[in-house]
Amino acid sequence: MKIGVMTGGGDCPGLNAVIRAVVLSAHARGWEVFGIEDATHGLVDLDYRSPHGNRWLTPDHVEDILGQGGTILGTSNKSDPWNFVVEVDGKPVSTDVSQQTVDNFNSLGLDALISIGGDGSMRIANKFGNMGMNVVGVPKTIDQDVAATDTTFGFATAVQCATEAIDRLQDTAESHDRVMILEVMGRDAGHIALHAAIAGSAHACLIPEIPYKIGPVVEKVKERRRNGHPHSIIVVAEGAMPAGGEASYGENELGEMPKYFGAAQRLAAGLEPHLELDVRFTILGHLQRGGSPVQFDRILGTRYGVAAVEAVEAGKFGQMVALKNNQVTTVAIADVVEQHQHRVDPQGPFVHAARSVGITFGE
Amino acid sequence: MKIGVMTGGGDCPGLNAVIRAVVLSAHARGWEVFGIEDATHGLVDLDYRSPHGNRWLTPDHVEDILGQGGTILGTSNKSDPWNFVVEVDGKPVSTDVSQQTVDNFNSLGLDALISIGGDGSMRIANKFGNMGMNVVGVPKTIDQDVAATDTTFGFATAVQCATEAIDRLQDTAESHDRVMILEVMGRDAGHIALHAAIAGSAHACLIPEIPYKIGPVVEKVKERRRNGHPHSIIVVAEGAMPAGGEASYGENELGEMPKYFGAAQRLAAGLEPHLELDVRFTILGHLQRGGSPVQFDRILGTRYGVAAVEAVEAGKFGQMVALKNNQVTTVAIADVVEQHQHRVDPQGPFVHAARSVGITFGE
Amino acid sequence: MKIGVMTGGGDCPGLNAVIRAVVLSAHARGWEVFGIEDATHGLVDLDYRSPHGNRWLTPDHVEDILGQGGTILGTSNKSDPWNFVVEVDGKPVSTDVSQQTVDNFNSLGLDALISIGGDGSMRIANKFGNMGMNVVGVPKTIDQDVAATDTTFGFATAVQCATEAIDRLQDTAESHDRVMILEVMGRDAGHIALHAAIAGSAHACLIPEIPYKIGPVVEKVKERRRNGHPHSIIVVAEGAMPAGGEASYGENELGEMPKYFGAAQRLAAGLEPHLELDVRFTILGHLQRGGSPVQFDRILGTRYGVAAVEAVEAGKFGQMVALKNNQVTTVAIADVVEQHQHRVDPQGPFVHAARSVGITFGE
Amino acid sequence: MKIGVMTGGGDCPGLNAVIRAVVLSAHARGWEVFGIEDATHGLVDLDYRSPHGNRWLTPDHVEDILGQGGTILGTSNKSDPWNFVVEVDGKPVSTDVSQQTVDNFNSLGLDALISIGGDGSMRIANKFGNMGMNVVGVPKTIDQDVAATDTTFGFATAVQCATEAIDRLQDTAESHDRVMILEVMGRDAGHIALHAAIAGSAHACLIPEIPYKIGPVVEKVKERRRNGHPHSIIVVAEGAMPAGGEASYGENELGEMPKYFGAAQRLAAGLEPHLELDVRFTILGHLQRGGSPVQFDRILGTRYGVAAVEAVEAGKFGQMVALKNNQVTTVAIADVVEQHQHRVDPQGPFVHAARSVGITFGE
Repeated sequence: MKIGVMTGGGDCPGLNAVIRAVVLSAHARGWEVFGIEDATHGLVDLDYRSPHGNRWLTPDHVEDILGQGGTILGTSNKSDPWNFVVEVDGKPVSTDVSQQTVDNFNSLGLDALISIGGDGSMRIANKFGNMGMNVVGVPKTIDQDVAATDTTFGFATAVQCATEAIDRLQDTAESHDRVMILEVMGRDAGHIALHAAIAGSAHACLIPEIPYKIGPVVEKVKERRRNGHPHSIIVVAEGAMPAGGEASYGENELGEMPKYFGAAQRLAAGLEPHLELDVRFTILGHLQRGGSPVQFDRILGTRYGVAAVEAVEAGKFGQMVALKNNQVTTVAIADVVEQHQHRVDPQGPFVHAARSVGITFGE
Repeated sequence: MKIGVMTGGGDCPGLNAVIRAVVLSAHARGWEVFGIEDATHGLVDLDYRSPHGNRWLTPDHVEDILGQGGTILGTSNKSDPWNFVVEVDGKPVSTDVSQQTVDNFNSLGLDALISIGGDGSMRIANKFGNMGMNVVGVPKTIDQDVAATDTTFGFATAVQCATEAIDRLQDTAESHDRVMILEVMGRDAGHIALHAAIAGSAHACLIPEIPYKIGPVVEKVKERRRNGHPHSIIVVAEGAMPAGGEASYGENELGEMPKYFGAAQRLAAGLEPHLELDVRFTILGHLQRGGSPVQFDRILGTRYGVAAVEAVEAGKFGQMVALKNNQVTTVAIADVVEQHQHRVDPQGPFVHAARSVGITFGE
Repeated sequence: MKIGVMTGGGDCPGLNAVIRAVVLSAHARGWEVFGIEDATHGLVDLDYRSPHGNRWLTPDHVEDILGQGGTILGTSNKSDPWNFVVEVDGKPVSTDVSQQTVDNFNSLGLDALISIGGDGSMRIANKFGNMGMNVVGVPKTIDQDVAATDTTFGFATAVQCATEAIDRLQDTAESHDRVMILEVMGRDAGHIALHAAIAGSAHACLIPEIPYKIGPVVEKVKERRRNGHPHSIIVVAEGAMPAGGEASYGENELGEMPKYFGAAQRLAAGLEPHLELDVRFTILGHLQRGGSPVQFDRILGTRYGVAAVEAVEAGKFGQMVALKNNQVTTVAIADVVEQHQHRVDPQGPFVHAARSVGITFGE
Repeated sequence: MKIGVMTGGGDCPGLNAVIRAVVLSAHARGWEVFGIEDATHGLVDLDYRSPHGNRWLTPDHVEDILGQGGTILGTSNKSDPWNFVVEVDGKPVSTDVSQQTVDNFNSLGLDALISIGGDGSMRIANKFGNMGMNVVGVPKTIDQDVAATDTTFGFATAVQCATEAIDRLQDTAESHDRVMILEVMGRDAGHIALHAAIAGSAHACLIPEIPYKIGPVVEKVKERRRNGHPHSIIVVAEGAMPAGGEASYGENELGEMPKYFGAAQRLAAGLEPHLELDVRFTILGHLQRGGSPVQFDRILGTRYGVAAVEAVEAGKFGQMVALKNNQVTTVAIADVVEQHQHRVDPQGPFVHAARSVGITFGE
């Protein structure tokens, strides 16, 4: 038995845990495992070379990787074989290399592919399945926004990173009587912002699912000041928007948002006219995607990798492993790609807990 | 409405998260919250003074505590009112102070008690309930051994602490070609050892639920050596025992175990006659109970605190909050105290995942 | 003997270590210590109230603060008694409250003041000295830019924070073949950027002391790409400027810098036209000022606090404690305020070490 | 130019920083670098194979190692070529392989050797020098006990590890009113214990340089109890001994120390008869040698590696790089091996600072 393994989409702590478990479980069965580099790039071109490296993976390759951030296979956001960008006469041209990809897969003698990735990767995996390739999926999303699984690896590490950032800001905000803004990841889903705001005891949390007004945020800061706490911490997801959209900032003489100008700056520009306190911001950016995974993500990644190999063994192709009520199970990839994203429920238990300890959402 | 809150049993990261959420949720309702110190000590004697301090808690008291380890209320393992130890003529004498405790509770004008603790605390809470006190429980166990809840706060932090310890040992074991033993908490249940062993990519894991033989552990070390990895890491729970019991070490000339001699030393003594490699050990001890809680424990503690106040509001007395399939719910305390401890299932999913990546349990 | 202690200027990890050592050393001598809040605010107005709180400090107040970031006394950048801003008819008016401050100091019966702060605080301390107040200074600067001392507390913690950020970015930059920019503190001095760049194995480091050209930075990224490493990390101090000044970006159609637009955005705008790779940035901001101090800062802060009390005892007024060749000594505050800032020496040992391991400064 | 590099003696965070800087600096000069594995093992036998691996090192080999604990070259405590242990007829026999080692060095065409290690490695380096080999030394000691340099890499990381352990113990000791013992490294020198005790705000610190009496330690615990702090933390170096030697414990019915019984157990046995409080201990062991190096150790290791290559270029053979008053310089290896160990000075500035904040040394 020979299987391939690849990682696609954005980077996520815990990817190496899955790869390691796949390699160790497969080798325990006497199987061989081919590591495909930079998502489908390594399948489109078998001679593809990058630091990550197409190669047959042995237990030695994964001996030390469980605690490492990133992915030893590399990843890519731009590797859809049905829309593959190549350079022709110095210009980027989109082309369909799907058949070539499947041919390469077959020429390697691979019996199955374990594809670790997010929504985009699952859509590609589904199409591969339709072309007869035996695919098992493993869900990956740092934003917690895949509906088909209760959670996946990477999210806990990202929230821990953001929580530790708030802890640090609390120290200095309190010493200085300041308002601090922390911008975290989350274009469409505010799970990281919400969890970090609760865990870091922030005072306001602005997320894409709940358009915010400046007024209630300003009132929260002032209420704290009246109660003897002149500092406040605001967590803002990168996709959080004011209730009236960008235009609502016109009154603050901001006009059109410049490039490189994100949620933190937009919020600072909205707040400062209303507050005498200094406003400072921190933008975590890709810090949240790197770093050694926390134990939860290492264990879940390991369980997923083991389960993916077992799914291959059982012939459960076209399935994705998933966590449902703490049990690892499988769901049809075809169903996954049809589901809507898992967004924060403004009436759900986490927003409820946040409100109960006094966090405002700018409503 | 006036409620009391106390923490009992062993220390556990996340206790302050519960206390904080209780205080903030209650104050948002206009209630008052009395903080009882050192478990029931503060109720047995209302003038009880310790650094932790009986006092009416305001939001200011809990402003900065979410990220702190320990409990601002103090805790105790020796405060069963039905078996309370007092000193008489310089000698410890056990006495029943339960009625005095309930009288003190009433004299404070308290309408309900939120008791945060483990099995012992829940048994006491149940008895208080039988005497007419309105009690709501919040489960606490760093060992993950309470059956009535899927998990509770503190465990994730303890596992993270043990995992980071293994990470450090990996570095130096590999440089030195050594066998390293890490002793972690777990007298009766091996959950911490098991989770940390998976997350830290240990090579052997010895837990109370699976009596171990030295032979398979030695064989694992030698197998790794044959495969070019002369170092190995063994995680051992403090309650792990050899299959034949302590006596089985007689052959290693160890005889009766001396005082202060625990699982790590016992294992080292068993291993060394069979290995040419140096064996070194680390005993984590109470490191696992301290430290700033990880985000998961802060959030779960917050959710529990909020839910406990809601249970009081709803008159759900004699109930304990619990997590079931990611939902916070309540269970009857009377049922909780009848249930067996939640031990590691040797055929369960975590042991299965561990075996699948090559971890031996000394079987 | 009664002494006052205050912290001024920007927040800095290790301030609590100094305060604690002052209180413990003084109490061991039978002295009393008055904690003045929010820099001179607490002296200008003895009834000043804030969460930090004017109060007589006992060992109990400092029992748990050594590991805490921030300062239990609060701090302020806007508290020069010779230029004190008060509100008159709703408008800020600058006024001289120095005599009132000294009178308050005397009315408290204080024999000496220990002033912990940076250049600004030392200038004020010097003026207080000229008015007859007994002052001992303790140097504080997170930027390492005070010339009179080899180093001071806070810097090591800030560099550690920035280094851990680079570690995280390395993981994800490598997985994604990206260029990552990390903006760190340092308006006038690039010490944090320089040290973190070496410690984090960054590939370029842009600091205020060496105006940078985009060309060599682009060439470094391309050289790495040619050598099989398509990712690069660039550390940029907030005060780093292109060799031609801001105007040099006009060619990149950036025009005038918008508000909230700092060194990271400026650099990204300069780089992107020259690179096909994605450029992402992280802005650490005040993360670098918060957090539990690393051991070095805790120990140095403790040594400074002990030395400051000994200086008071020896009547060494008008002196500031300092570290010279690993020895704690004292220097005249009058000399300190005349000295130029300690900037990065472009020919010094740290820049030399950085260049030797391949870091470019954009020259 | 061809140079060899090796690491000898105990593991130490920062070794990879030196190796990396040697490789990058040498390659920038067009030199080649041979990585010798497991100290002299790789030179005694050029075909020596271990996971670490004899090999010519390129910049690619050191691309990701700066933040890694351990040493990519492996190390050994048992590799003195003048006293090399080989197995003859199943029995260990000591033999002199020094000439063979030098011959191998020459056969590789190496012009110089950079030997990174402690006292033992420097003695061997000195002998190699006497046989005509061009050697430059780099000092390594996690215990801070090499007299010829102000400090070296690894120590700061070990102290940080021990400090974080005390932080965790503080939380739980305080919640539980307990006495906690932390055993740290230091057979002959107590620098780690002393620095961690100051940084962690421990209450007692027992080190090899100051034989301790139980009485003053008990009195410290009781004094704290009287002042309302029923918990205490004691840091003990593994080489700390009671003033009367081991026999002095006879009165506590301990008799001869059993194997695996160290400073922590000895102290617990001595304390418990005098205290009603529970005594618990944590033994850090090799945790202190592993882990990602803190920024200081990464930077100092880098500076040493750069300086070692410059020493080779300048023909400064028989010299060891060292840090004197914050400057990297060189000292004669012949002098280094004659010097006494750098022990804690009981009258020095760090013990003085510790006493000033109330830490007892059991005197």
